[in-house]
Amino acid sequence: MINLTVDLAERSYPIFIGQKLLDNPDVLLPYISGKQVLIVSNTTVAPLYLKKIKALLTSKSVFEIILPDGEKYKNQDTLNTIYDALLSNRLDRSCTLIALGGGVVGDITGFAAASYQRGVNFIQIPTTLLSQVDSSVGGKTGINHPLGKNMVGAFKQPKCVIADTDTLSTLPKRELSAGFAEVAKYGFLHDERFITWLENNVDKIFKLDAQALAYAVEKSCQAKADIVAADEFESANRALLNLGHTFGHAIETQMGYGNWLHGEGVAAGMCMAARMSAILNMISDNDVKRIEKLLERAFLPILPPHNMTKALFIKTMSVDKKVKDNIITLILIKQLGKAIISSDYSSQSFNDLFSYYQL
Amino acid sequence: MINLTVDLAERSYPIFIGQKLLDNPDVLLPYISGKQVLIVSNTTVAPLYLKKIKALLTSKSVFEIILPDGEKYKNQDTLNTIYDALLSNRLDRSCTLIALGGGVVGDITGFAAASYQRGVNFIQIPTTLLSQVDSSVGGKTGINHPLGKNMVGAFKQPKCVIADTDTLSTLPKRELSAGFAEVAKYGFLHDERFITWLENNVDKIFKLDAQALAYAVEKSCQAKADIVAADEFESANRALLNLGHTFGHAIETQMGYGNWLHGEGVAAGMCMAARMSAILNMISDNDVKRIEKLLERAFLPILPPHNMTKALFIKTMSVDKKVKDNIITLILIKQLGKAIISSDYSSQSFNDLFSYYQL
Repeated sequence: MINLTVDLAERSYPIFIGQKLLDNPDVLLPYISGKQVLIVSNTTVAPLYLKKIKALLTSKSVFEIILPDGEKYKNQDTLNTIYDALLSNRLDRSCTLIALGGGVVGDITGFAAASYQRGVNFIQIPTTLLSQVDSSVGGKTGINHPLGKNMVGAFKQPKCVIADTDTLSTLPKRELSAGFAEVAKYGFLHDERFITWLENNVDKIFKLDAQALAYAVEKSCQAKADIVAADEFESANRALLNLGHTFGHAIETQMGYGNWLHGEGVAAGMCMAARMSAILNMISDNDVKRIEKLLERAFLPILPPHNMTKALFIKTMSVDKKVKDNIITLILIKQLGKAIISSDYSSQSFNDLFSYYQL
Repeated sequence: MINLTVDLAERSYPIFIGQKLLDNPDVLLPYISGKQVLIVSNTTVAPLYLKKIKALLTSKSVFEIILPDGEKYKNQDTLNTIYDALLSNRLDRSCTLIALGGGVVGDITGFAAASYQRGVNFIQIPTTLLSQVDSSVGGKTGINHPLGKNMVGAFKQPKCVIADTDTLSTLPKRELSAGFAEVAKYGFLHDERFITWLENNVDKIFKLDAQALAYAVEKSCQAKADIVAADEFESANRALLNLGHTFGHAIETQMGYGNWLHGEGVAAGMCMAARMSAILNMISDNDVKRIEKLLERAFLPILPPHNMTKALFIKTMSVDKKVKDNIITLILIKQLGKAIISSDYSSQSFNDLFSYYQL
């Protein structure tokens, strides 16, 4: 078992990575302080793993709520069903919420934990590659609003994260790919050697090689943990983690939540950010192709959908959180393994980007 | 102008208390960092003071949303109208929300500011005595749920609080009384000399003597600020501020939000807490009478409503946040000017309390 620490002073917490962690009460139990536990899961994950988790919690009062599966349910109505479950079962301030599932379950459960009685304990058990490497590290929680993704939420750090790589064996291939997009992102923005490792190991990952998966999750979590520890509330470099996300969110929003997976939007978005970086002469055409090639080998889209337009991108990007006083801030790739935050580009170069894609 | 500081490290903020503060741009403007401002007010307060505030903000992009007035609107639906206003007007992360009104406006606006884009700036301009001395100090924000008051919320500290005592001249007498309940609370739990001052000045306060009001607001804010600074997230002594609130919330909830004002519930609740303290031989019968007398002179109820029952109290109090692992924790008065947190009482003494009131 790998044990990383996200270093946030009194909000520091461990991430456990490895196999068979969901069979081991000694991993989970020490992080539950009160008697009452609400497990939040969804209709896909609960049949696979809920029984295992409950078997670890025989000493507790355990309640459960099973949400419908999908990004389109990451909304206020679903959040209200969690509040209703908490209140109708009279869970008190000392209770713990456990998120058992992917990013949607983690984000919505985290925000429920942040806001129920102004904050209760929270544990993440991410069961998708995406949530293991991304949403379970760093404390961003929230829900979508019809006018934008993640527009309502909170920073809420969990007591611990348990990433059991065995759960990835039940994950649809398309979602493994979507998770890989975020894994590759850490290479593109933070660590060129990790890009090389991924180029050498992408096939192993898609064959679910346990060691390769654990290493990819560990490197990703470590990269994110380092960046988050330096800037918990995203006043500066934490924004680098949004590489590909501004374009990607626009794609997801315009295509309707759930039609493109988050990681698919991020993959196409990273290619767009890379292309923009090449237009600005930060990286070469070959660098862009290297990025595109790795993502293609992971079965990910490298082009925005043909029915997106420049106007649709700008409309959605201008309500995105990555906007300050009406200027769209982009995360660009200064060189492979190093991203920067920039709003210092000409409208001509921005136009060139959309011309390149004939949007 | 009086200037207090609530001392919370990097979340410290000033409270300005005095007359004519809403005419002075130098008080408000330094605390607004971005360009966009959303003023949240209600149908009662906006006609009185919104124009004044807007006149201070001519250098900003100012939006407004006017909520219906009343505790029964402190709910998810009203909160959603604030999110809608923020998103449809494309307010970004650098925006500031200003709460102009009483406790309901402050609590709901504070939670909107805590959760919109995971947190934006927030300023409180409380226009009732209750909100000036209570809800604007300490960062508790939130909304009610059909199953309990303040069950969804966040700790969110404002950038500053501006308590203009002139606004109390337009406050209905019943609400002045309700605010006085919280003022008196600081005496009962923290400072016996302040009880004596209030006994000597209660009539001046109800004649809106500016000096007496400013002193009462200052002493109250200072008492609360001291207690909050020592325990921001209510892990210990901050709970003393709930004197009268566990009983009071039960009354408010059972009577229907808005039929009893919060301060009226707290007044009757403090008398119940005092009576319980006398039953436990902490204070004398005469001490209880002194508490009741001061509250009566402020036109406040000193008895629970006759249609409450013991069962209704227990039912509501057991979903209250002041419950840990199913034991109802009470705030009791150890001696006048000193409260304690206690769950160390017999069920017989608890029964005696309700017998005393024939409930």
